[in-house]
Amino acid sequence: MILAKVVGTVVSTHKEKSMEGLKFLVLQQVDLDGSETGGFVVAADAVSAGWGEMVLYATGSSARQTVMTDKRPCDAVVMAIVDNWEVDGKIKYKKGESD
Amino acid sequence: MILAKVVGTVVSTHKEKSMEGLKFLVLQQVDLDGSETGGFVVAADAVSAGWGEMVLYATGSSARQTVMTDKRPCDAVVMAIVDNWEVDGKIKYKKGESD
Amino acid sequence: MILAKVVGTVVSTHKEKSMEGLKFLVLQQVDLDGSETGGFVVAADAVSAGWGEMVLYATGSSARQTVMTDKRPCDAVVMAIVDNWEVDGKIKYKKGESD
Amino acid sequence: MILAKVVGTVVSTHKEKSMEGLKFLVLQQVDLDGSETGGFVVAADAVSAGWGEMVLYATGSSARQTVMTDKRPCDAVVMAIVDNWEVDGKIKYKKGESD
Amino acid sequence: MILAKVVGTVVSTHKEKSMEGLKFLVLQQVDLDGSETGGFVVAADAVSAGWGEMVLYATGSSARQTVMTDKRPCDAVVMAIVDNWEVDGKIKYKKGESD
Repeated sequence: MILAKVVGTVVSTHKEKSMEGLKFLVLQQVDLDGSETGGFVVAADAVSAGWGEMVLYATGSSARQTVMTDKRPCDAVVMAIVDNWEVDGKIKYKKGESD
Repeated sequence: MILAKVVGTVVSTHKEKSMEGLKFLVLQQVDLDGSETGGFVVAADAVSAGWGEMVLYATGSSARQTVMTDKRPCDAVVMAIVDNWEVDGKIKYKKGESD
Repeated sequence: MILAKVVGTVVSTHKEKSMEGLKFLVLQQVDLDGSETGGFVVAADAVSAGWGEMVLYATGSSARQTVMTDKRPCDAVVMAIVDNWEVDGKIKYKKGESD
Repeated sequence: MILAKVVGTVVSTHKEKSMEGLKFLVLQQVDLDGSETGGFVVAADAVSAGWGEMVLYATGSSARQTVMTDKRPCDAVVMAIVDNWEVDGKIKYKKGESD
Repeated sequence: MILAKVVGTVVSTHKEKSMEGLKFLVLQQVDLDGSETGGFVVAADAVSAGWGEMVLYATGSSARQTVMTDKRPCDAVVMAIVDNWEVDGKIKYKKGESD
């Protein structure tokens, strides 16, 4: 899974029927300090993530292993909202402190 | 999913039988400002996207989760035409305004 | 799918039994002008492509969705020989003219 | 599979239900000398790997081929703790000596 | 599939149960001249490849389409030992001559 920050949304009215009802989020990938790295992806939202939240997303066929994305042409899904992460024993990100 | 712009088409008469009837689009990947980044891919078209339209495409096994691409050797499919996207509360692209 | 040019072949007598009978092609990836970009891959041939031909290949599980590659440890397959492609209304490649 | 070092953990209380009970590890990819290369990924832990250990992780649908990750939206899993590796006849890493 | 050279092995006693009995090889990717490019991967061995041999490996779900890797958390497998390859009509590598 990849660490990313929710920065926006994509709206599409004309899409594959099976994609109706799915919300598309714009995610900016972040490094282990929580800084945006420049890479981004559009992912379906399986956990009602909000703007500015740090999340984990999964790609490929694994992105279809949620009730919302099962059997849909979806190759990236937000499957967790991150509370915090630590590296080498130090908290590098904690929700509510740095965002 | 990846944001991209439809810029062309690929024609093939000699292909795997299961691919007959599919339209191949040339997609240029775009950044969050809608500018082309130089990367491109060829994708099957599941939503009748037209030249110049901004779209989302899905890759891998997810590209086979449409009626048109089911069980075919297709690893990229356009599954949504984009109306608009916003980043950090600002509309970055709106169909009909910038293209 | 990715645009590429057939530039060679790979021969292997000692391989997974299920791979017997498959022909391995060396493909050079090309840009939208048809120039080789330096990247290459080895793909199974599902369409009897010849040396110098421009082709499309599919990767991942989609590479197994042909009669020849079904249930085999094959992650790239040539599934179409390209006649021509156009970008922004201009023919960029036409078989028989530039190769 | 990719060689990596366990450097941290990610905590998430709000996630896809099927992900409950899984531990998320932060992995830094390493080169053949065991030095971190800068790339990282978040993977589920199927082998109770500890901080500082060298591991192998698998990605994509293969990441769901463990009892812990079966049918879950998980695209990376630690499936082996590494004792040692050798390249060109020389031991390049041995557990307990260099970490 | 990707061309690579077998340069080493990885030993792991503590791993996912389904991985027992599999041999892990360290592979260095090579260019079309057979020179190592710097990239490497760890793959399961389905063909008893030896040190210094040129091989083809497959990734993703295709890496599980061998008797040895079926239903295992394995995302890369050596599925062919290469005898030779040619590019533009010239033999670029022949087993026993350049290694």
